[in-house]
Amino acid sequence: MAREIAFIAALRAFADDPAARGLMDDAAVLPRPGGDLVLTHDMLVEGVHYLSGDAPADVAWKLVSVNLSDLTAKGAVPLGVLLGYAMTEDAAWDSAFAEGIGAAASALGVKLLGGDTVRMPTGAPRALGLTAIGQAPPSGAPSRAGAKAGDRLWVSGTVGDAGRGLAIRLGRAQGDAALVDRYLRPQPRLALGQALAPLVTAMADVSDGLLIDARRIAHASGCAIAIDLGAVPLSGPYVAASGADGAARITAATSGDDYELLFTAPAAMDGPVLAAAGAANVPVVPVGLCTAGEDITLTLAGEAVDLPAHLGWLHE
Amino acid sequence: MAREIAFIAALRAFADDPAARGLMDDAAVLPRPGGDLVLTHDMLVEGVHYLSGDAPADVAWKLVSVNLSDLTAKGAVPLGVLLGYAMTEDAAWDSAFAEGIGAAASALGVKLLGGDTVRMPTGAPRALGLTAIGQAPPSGAPSRAGAKAGDRLWVSGTVGDAGRGLAIRLGRAQGDAALVDRYLRPQPRLALGQALAPLVTAMADVSDGLLIDARRIAHASGCAIAIDLGAVPLSGPYVAASGADGAARITAATSGDDYELLFTAPAAMDGPVLAAAGAANVPVVPVGLCTAGEDITLTLAGEAVDLPAHLGWLHE
Repeated sequence: MAREIAFIAALRAFADDPAARGLMDDAAVLPRPGGDLVLTHDMLVEGVHYLSGDAPADVAWKLVSVNLSDLTAKGAVPLGVLLGYAMTEDAAWDSAFAEGIGAAASALGVKLLGGDTVRMPTGAPRALGLTAIGQAPPSGAPSRAGAKAGDRLWVSGTVGDAGRGLAIRLGRAQGDAALVDRYLRPQPRLALGQALAPLVTAMADVSDGLLIDARRIAHASGCAIAIDLGAVPLSGPYVAASGADGAARITAATSGDDYELLFTAPAAMDGPVLAAAGAANVPVVPVGLCTAGEDITLTLAGEAVDLPAHLGWLHE
Repeated sequence: MAREIAFIAALRAFADDPAARGLMDDAAVLPRPGGDLVLTHDMLVEGVHYLSGDAPADVAWKLVSVNLSDLTAKGAVPLGVLLGYAMTEDAAWDSAFAEGIGAAASALGVKLLGGDTVRMPTGAPRALGLTAIGQAPPSGAPSRAGAKAGDRLWVSGTVGDAGRGLAIRLGRAQGDAALVDRYLRPQPRLALGQALAPLVTAMADVSDGLLIDARRIAHASGCAIAIDLGAVPLSGPYVAASGADGAARITAATSGDDYELLFTAPAAMDGPVLAAAGAANVPVVPVGLCTAGEDITLTLAGEAVDLPAHLGWLHE
């Protein structure tokens, strides 16, 4: 991990355009005369980001959806995607993957515009890349840096499901198939992100874990965030598999891959936030409060809880 | 190669947005209120597109320049690039590569806006991707499909140098170091592409070879193109190494990686074309004539020459 951080730090020296947002945000935001563009590129590598045995249609879905999730945090409307596909020796896999890209693009409402297809040397793992381009809302693309003391911290849907789903898939835990599906087939919150963008002061997608993504918002915004673990939304299948005690809530709040939206808004926006969530048909709940200070703090039933050693995935 | 073609054909079924141009062009062209955007994504894989021993700064240069070359063919002004970097175990390589990306972006006048850094499994080759975004000219982005009977076919600079440079690098041929440099450090013709865009009827960059890229223009435009091999521009170092007879000219016209511009324009545009080339300080010469019919034909000193079996690289 230190090597990735060093590499990104070296690149940051050259990424001095404001659109790059210091390579710290979910996506680049490029001002254009017709409205800001949102640009993101995420990769998946066989054996690193997915298992060699995963179905090609699931891998294709994940590649499209994790990139679109970066657009959701900016409230962007997807304009298209470019695919970078490094194929290996399995023609049936290629064919199923191409079908999967088409199915995911169609289901998620985005067009395949182009890209590149290359061949890996024999025996090498597949490396897949996708670039997603979106149109920012007229109100501007939210960043992670706008939270203010007094704002609430909200999260959409439920968290912890995908992390539990991965554990089930790896044979390390039991639980409902819906949890595995949540891991394999993330649903980017496109409509919700578009509806929330004009209302929020900061927004991010929960790719690495609620706590670590909340810490990033706190750091970028220069405020503290007090998080009520008891308010962290858990699904029925998650509670059935893991329970709902403090440990289960910490696990849920430090799991990645849920791709929910985490955002801050002043309390005066409660009504519009709930209306936006209703219109997008995705529940949202307040889970914390921004205050003066720095970093995140946790409580459960009014008692302070120590921060866990690991707040989430640190893979970037 | 058949597998790549089958994969792209499968994707094409889903790439039905006009912006995708049927996945047949150098880049996607996406209409936007503030002017069309040009989008391209090309990958380089270690051991496939470059040699493991190549200097990381050269690999970085090639990654940026081949993507920008796709923009040149559309007359686009680069707006930025996103990097997808799959790192391996060599931290010194990473560091030199990051420096090289910065140096290439700076020299070529484009900003690094974002991207993703991942790690390959131990022992796997590096896979590198870059997305380039550009602004199309107000006159619109040229395609490969607009050539008309009566138009001249022009090419910029000289061809064959990079192909000879690769052969030298592989120990299969002798020649001047300038030829190797041409292979390692292609120069995308950005200023020339921007100056020519309003004047041309079709334009492409010569990534795979003059003859194959000319055939693609002929096919896309529904015309024939008669090419005079004697007019194909050769550099001094190329002629010193390979000579300038018919065989040397066929080799030059079927070599890839030169990244020159190949374009068509009506004879009435000769003056403006030459003025644009003068302003961009890159020579251009007419090498053929579009006629009614289909495919390309070759002549040398007025005599018909059979098409070679291989017109260039068919890697896509």
